[in-house]
Amino acid sequence: MKPVLSQRPRVGAPGHAPDAKSLGAAVPKQSAAAKMPPLPAEAVRRLQLFLGEIERLAGTMVGYPCSQDFECPELTPFLRFALNNVGDPFSESLYRENTFAFEREVVAFFQKHLRAPAGETWGYVTAGGTEGNLYGLYLAREIFPEGVVYFSEHTHYSAAKIVRVLGARSIMIRGRDDGEIDYDDLRETLRLHRDVPPIILANIGTTMHGAVDDLAKIRALMKELAIVRYYIHADAALSGMILPWVPEPEPFGFDAGVDSVTVSGHKFIGSPMPCGVVLARRCHVDRVARSVEYVGCMDTTIAGSRNALAPLVLWSALQRRGEAGLRQRALDCIALADYAIAQFKAAGVTAWRHKNSVTVVFPNPGPEVIARWQIAPRHDIAHIITLPHVTRAMIYAVVADVARSLRRTPPNH
Amino acid sequence: MKPVLSQRPRVGAPGHAPDAKSLGAAVPKQSAAAKMPPLPAEAVRRLQLFLGEIERLAGTMVGYPCSQDFECPELTPFLRFALNNVGDPFSESLYRENTFAFEREVVAFFQKHLRAPAGETWGYVTAGGTEGNLYGLYLAREIFPEGVVYFSEHTHYSAAKIVRVLGARSIMIRGRDDGEIDYDDLRETLRLHRDVPPIILANIGTTMHGAVDDLAKIRALMKELAIVRYYIHADAALSGMILPWVPEPEPFGFDAGVDSVTVSGHKFIGSPMPCGVVLARRCHVDRVARSVEYVGCMDTTIAGSRNALAPLVLWSALQRRGEAGLRQRALDCIALADYAIAQFKAAGVTAWRHKNSVTVVFPNPGPEVIARWQIAPRHDIAHIITLPHVTRAMIYAVVADVARSLRRTPPNH
Repeated sequence: MKPVLSQRPRVGAPGHAPDAKSLGAAVPKQSAAAKMPPLPAEAVRRLQLFLGEIERLAGTMVGYPCSQDFECPELTPFLRFALNNVGDPFSESLYRENTFAFEREVVAFFQKHLRAPAGETWGYVTAGGTEGNLYGLYLAREIFPEGVVYFSEHTHYSAAKIVRVLGARSIMIRGRDDGEIDYDDLRETLRLHRDVPPIILANIGTTMHGAVDDLAKIRALMKELAIVRYYIHADAALSGMILPWVPEPEPFGFDAGVDSVTVSGHKFIGSPMPCGVVLARRCHVDRVARSVEYVGCMDTTIAGSRNALAPLVLWSALQRRGEAGLRQRALDCIALADYAIAQFKAAGVTAWRHKNSVTVVFPNPGPEVIARWQIAPRHDIAHIITLPHVTRAMIYAVVADVARSLRRTPPNH
Repeated sequence: MKPVLSQRPRVGAPGHAPDAKSLGAAVPKQSAAAKMPPLPAEAVRRLQLFLGEIERLAGTMVGYPCSQDFECPELTPFLRFALNNVGDPFSESLYRENTFAFEREVVAFFQKHLRAPAGETWGYVTAGGTEGNLYGLYLAREIFPEGVVYFSEHTHYSAAKIVRVLGARSIMIRGRDDGEIDYDDLRETLRLHRDVPPIILANIGTTMHGAVDDLAKIRALMKELAIVRYYIHADAALSGMILPWVPEPEPFGFDAGVDSVTVSGHKFIGSPMPCGVVLARRCHVDRVARSVEYVGCMDTTIAGSRNALAPLVLWSALQRRGEAGLRQRALDCIALADYAIAQFKAAGVTAWRHKNSVTVVFPNPGPEVIARWQIAPRHDIAHIITLPHVTRAMIYAVVADVARSLRRTPPNH
């Protein structure tokens, strides 16, 4: 062996290894990638065709709550690395190719705007709403293993899957026609099951109607029924990034008594991949945390290995837009929703929205229009969601298509 | 309204909307992105500093099973879109900005090389190993709600979290010193619990030792104990993409009797984000599938909204490398592992590996070397994993550091 063994140079210092260059910045990466075989011509063609198709589809995206007015040029240089946010972003991981520092700032931003008391919550960037809801309800079930999960029939369909995965008892509560939970049905159902702690999955903006379950009313019900052991998880996928910016928000955050809350990143903000943030009261989190030697950090997240690009996407978006930009963005979207409602009215179609919502509800126009505009219907209603990429021209065309279709085959009344 | 209402032009046809351009290819996207505020100078600086740090760290990545010899230039144009693989890749989704077509080809590739009988399995691209293991064990628990999950103490630490999330009963089985499950302990434990169906979480390559639990032995135990109702899920995170390419693989796929299996995409193949593939026998999958109107497809995946870039990453890698390329890649990695073992031996350090494994095990050299090389230790052992980005120069430097550290403070014997 070489005399290098008896020395103790720092990593990267000359003499540390026979080929110091291969340990230095960029060198191994560049040489490794240079060995990468080229993409076959047929594969390149497939991707080009697909890109054209996606470009075309993006022009008809009005029915899903996913903003499209973004680019992520800052991500490109990071696509060469095996980034991985293993475990808890507030710990140190032995896997150091992570974006924990950016993730922590994203979490702090959401903590602030979801009105978390300083130091009393914890959170992380998820792969989307389902992981966030699974995480929140997992905490709830750990705290109340015998608890019953209550959610309205207007809750996103993934809730049924989540309670099934968790093996939790659950009762679906009737929903009002406007999308809110039926508080009378909730009261009666809670009353019949006062022997088990309730776990409320509240919608802060339902998928179909953009309706916000009234957290104040729900807590008043608990008081009325003398229920002191309960848990509230809020699914604030879309509205969780709209309500912080409006002058008169419905109750939605930690100040409204939630124990955990999840907000999507790919909805109001926009992202090339589904992502989100889940926040929970630290006292709950600490119950499920456990130390693990393998990664040198706490295994507190659902996913374990996590996408480290998503925190960069969100961090960059927050840097680009800032609080003032996001506030203006929310107000613009709401104004656009009102424009859409006026256009529908002018075409003889009844359309409406909830206060502070960008989800415009109208009668189901039938499968052809649904497919053309990537609209998600449910029974006799459909909606468009006026996020910033939706133009007035798109609204004009949707309204015309819906009006024509309804004129041909009016909905059941 | 304009006379356009009485016509029925195709989408994108002239006259379909007042501003046909805004619906055509590329136009709305480009104009929307043009409105995007710039990244503040301070944020750009932060990202540049971070990029330099990641470049440096990539040169010391020998301890985790994540290949680093890739680039994904083909992804860049897709970062402008809200791609989302909602739901089942083998269904049609109303959310058409998806990469289902590519995902299906990736799944087919894994089905072939994990030796699935044609038409008898189903699968999807996951956000990583945890989702895949959660999915497989979820299926198992649905089929055997009273079942007990058995896994060795050498199983990845996330297994404990997963069975907790599922609320499943589980028993940890003793592990042999070389990383395999202790078949005697497994036999005795199964014998004591013959009233409940066993759910075996088998390691096809353990995290620490690269050990493969012997599926033939496990099935022989079932036969010996006359257990006919059981489920085997294989965690083949790393080795699931190595064993298909070696001349004498240990039993690892559907031909070895697994009911479901998960393989990571960011390990042997390499990916800028954690991802993977989970496959399961279709008969099991059909039990948990249920139709959902909202997305017009089956809610069969754990995540629901899923990263649509990951299938593009894997598809492109498979196109670039092909079967022959992956075979050579596996053989090269195994040869490099042998090179590392020889280097350790020359430096007086005992190192070893399992047959067909690229995980080289040696005594834990202590925290300083661990941190310098991003090595994951466990008790008195550590390992390096000789994936393609690991150079001989890196191995030389690791061996020197380990030898020096062990000479200073020899491990307990």
